[in-house]
Amino acid sequence: MSINCLQQQVVLHGLDGIIASSYENIRYLTGASISSLITIPTRLAALVVSAKDPKPTFVICRMEQPLAKKQSKIEDFRGYEEFQQSPLAMMADIVHEKGLDRGCIGIEMREICAGDFKSLKRYLPDVTFVAADELFDKIRMIKSAEEISFMADIAIATDKAIYDGLSTAHPGVTELDVLGAITKNLILQGTDIPAFLVLGAGQNAKFIHAVAGQYRLTTGDILRCDVGGRWRGYYSDIARTVVVGKANQKQIEIYKILWDVHEETIDHAKPGVKVSDLFIDCVNNFAKHGINDPLPHIGHSLGIGLHENPILCPTDHTVLEPGMVLCFEPIIMAEEAIYHVEDLVVITQNGSQILSRSRDWSKLLAIG
Amino acid sequence: MSINCLQQQVVLHGLDGIIASSYENIRYLTGASISSLITIPTRLAALVVSAKDPKPTFVICRMEQPLAKKQSKIEDFRGYEEFQQSPLAMMADIVHEKGLDRGCIGIEMREICAGDFKSLKRYLPDVTFVAADELFDKIRMIKSAEEISFMADIAIATDKAIYDGLSTAHPGVTELDVLGAITKNLILQGTDIPAFLVLGAGQNAKFIHAVAGQYRLTTGDILRCDVGGRWRGYYSDIARTVVVGKANQKQIEIYKILWDVHEETIDHAKPGVKVSDLFIDCVNNFAKHGINDPLPHIGHSLGIGLHENPILCPTDHTVLEPGMVLCFEPIIMAEEAIYHVEDLVVITQNGSQILSRSRDWSKLLAIG
Repeated sequence: MSINCLQQQVVLHGLDGIIASSYENIRYLTGASISSLITIPTRLAALVVSAKDPKPTFVICRMEQPLAKKQSKIEDFRGYEEFQQSPLAMMADIVHEKGLDRGCIGIEMREICAGDFKSLKRYLPDVTFVAADELFDKIRMIKSAEEISFMADIAIATDKAIYDGLSTAHPGVTELDVLGAITKNLILQGTDIPAFLVLGAGQNAKFIHAVAGQYRLTTGDILRCDVGGRWRGYYSDIARTVVVGKANQKQIEIYKILWDVHEETIDHAKPGVKVSDLFIDCVNNFAKHGINDPLPHIGHSLGIGLHENPILCPTDHTVLEPGMVLCFEPIIMAEEAIYHVEDLVVITQNGSQILSRSRDWSKLLAIG
Repeated sequence: MSINCLQQQVVLHGLDGIIASSYENIRYLTGASISSLITIPTRLAALVVSAKDPKPTFVICRMEQPLAKKQSKIEDFRGYEEFQQSPLAMMADIVHEKGLDRGCIGIEMREICAGDFKSLKRYLPDVTFVAADELFDKIRMIKSAEEISFMADIAIATDKAIYDGLSTAHPGVTELDVLGAITKNLILQGTDIPAFLVLGAGQNAKFIHAVAGQYRLTTGDILRCDVGGRWRGYYSDIARTVVVGKANQKQIEIYKILWDVHEETIDHAKPGVKVSDLFIDCVNNFAKHGINDPLPHIGHSLGIGLHENPILCPTDHTVLEPGMVLCFEPIIMAEEAIYHVEDLVVITQNGSQILSRSRDWSKLLAIG
C-alpha cells in the first residue's frame, strides 16, 4: 500500500488526515512488523498522515525504532522514551505541526483504547475525530499480487509443516509430540511466531478449542488440528483432519461430505457473489446430508489480521471482488469428533483459486 | 482472586460495579483463558460484577462458551451469537438487570476500544464510568501462593527448554535449527503457545529484536535468546546469552560484569525498596564498569500480562511488597553483541528469591 493511495482515500472520505495506531495498519502502511504492539499494548506507535503532506510521521518508542527503520520506507521518525515521554502528547504535537489541529482526522476507533482517545481529545480539542476503521478494512480487503504471492507461500509452508508433523503421529505417540513436531516445522519453515496451535485426538477431537496433552494416539482416532503462524506480519491459518492408522467406513463418509461441501462452496466463490450467499449455500448443502446446527461462520478473510472482513457469515453481504483472500473452513460436529478442513482461497477475475494445498487432502488421510 | 475480594475493592473505590473486558482480567477473575480475546479482538467478552450481587455475569460468544464453562467457576453465563447479536447491547442489558444503570461502574479504559466505549455510553446514558485499570493492576500486582508456584514451574520449564535447545547449537547448525529445538521443547513442556522467540547469533546478536534465520553458527559466536510462552494464561519470559564452542577473555569479562550487576540488583530487591531505586542502582553499577547509555527499563512485573506493573524504570516509584513477581533483565549492548540475562524473581518477606534457574548460568556457558 502506497501512502499516496491512502491519501487519495483520505481525501475521498472528506478527511484532512488519518492516524493508524494498530499493529495491523502500521504493518500494512509502513511495512514494519512491530510485534510488541500486540504483546505490550501500552507501548504505543502511530503513523500520522496528512492528506496534503507526502511524508507521514512514524511515532514509535526508541527501543523499537531500529527495527521499524530497517523494515519500513518511512523517512520521518519521532521516537519517544518509554515511561518518560508521552506518545500521545507527541502525536498531538505532530498533528499541530502538520496543521491538522482544526481538521477532521480519521482514527481507529476499534483499536485505540478509550483512555488514550480521551487523552488525545484533550490534547487536540479542535480536531473532529472520525472512525476510519472501515476505510482501513476496505483498502486491506483487496490484496496486491505481492501479498497474494506471499500468503500463498506461507499457506503452503504451513500445510507442509502440518503434513510432516502428522507423519510422526504413530499409535502410542502423544498429542504433544505431534504438536511439537508441527511447531518445530513451522519455525524451520520461517514463521516469526506460532499464533494458534489447536490439536486434539480421540475424545479431545470433540472440542473446538482442543488443547494438546499427554493423550497417546490410538488406531482409529480422529485427529484434528487448526494451526497458524504470523510471518512478517501475515497470518497463515490451516485446518486438517486425519485418522490414525486406519479409517472406518463411517469416518470416510463423514469426511467425504465435509470435503464435497467444502469444494462446492469454494466452487461458488467468484466476483459478484455475496459472502452471505456462500454461507447459505454451504449450510443448505450440509442440510441435504442431514447435517444441521451450523456454526456462526464458515470462514473469514485473512491477512495481517486473523479474522479480517469480509466474514463468511449470514449477516455480511459484501460482494466478492478479485484479490480478496479468504479462509474457507466448514466443520462437521460429529458425535465422535469434529471434522474440520480449512483452505486459503483467492478470488480471481473469473472464479477462485485454492492456495493452501501442498498435497491431496481430498480423501480422509490415514497417518502413522 | 475471589470475586468477593474484588467486590471489597469495588466498594472501597466507591463504585457500584465493575466490568472486566480484557483477556488478562477475565483470565484473572474467572480462570478462563480465552485466547481469541487476543487473536480476534472483535470477539468481545466481559465479566459484569455488581458490588452487591454475589454472582457476576460472564458475557461471551457462544462458540467460546464450552471452554469458558470448563475452565471457570462462574455460574451465570450469557452467550451471544457472533455476527448476529451485539455483545455490548447484552452487557448493557445485564447492567440494567443488576440495577446498575444509574450507578458508578469501573471499566478498563486502557483496554476497551474507543468505539465500543462510545456504544456502551449510548446504551447506558445514566451510568458514570470510571477508569478501573489501576484497581485491576493493584489486585494483580501481589501474586497468590498458587500463582507464584505456577509461575515458578513455567519459568523452570522455559529455562530447561532453552538449555536443551541450546545444547543442539553446534557450529554449522542454523539459528532456526536451534530456535526450532527450543520451541519444540516449549511445546513438550506444555506451553499453550510460544509468545516471543528472539534468537540471534554472530552479527544478528547485535539486534534487540533479532529474528532467527539461516545463519550458521560459528565457533566464538555470541548467541542470545529471549524466549517465552503463555501457559494457561500466564507468561514465562527468560533471556540467556551463551557462546558457541569457546569464549574469549573479553566475552568472559563482559558476561561477568552483566552477571554481577544482575545479582547485585536482585540482591537489593526486598520489601520497602522503590523499583525506581533498583533501576538507579543497576545503572550506577553498570557505570562503575564504564557501561553507560542504559535502556529505559531493566525489568518488569510478569503474570497474565507480559509487562505488568510495576516496571523497573526511573519513573515508577512503586514500593516492593512480598508476593510481587518481577523479571530482572539487564542488558549490555557491547560492540560485538548484546549480552542479556533475564530471571524471574519473587519478593519474599525479607528479601527476594530467584525462581527461574534450572541450572547454573553464572559463567558464560560454552555450548555446542
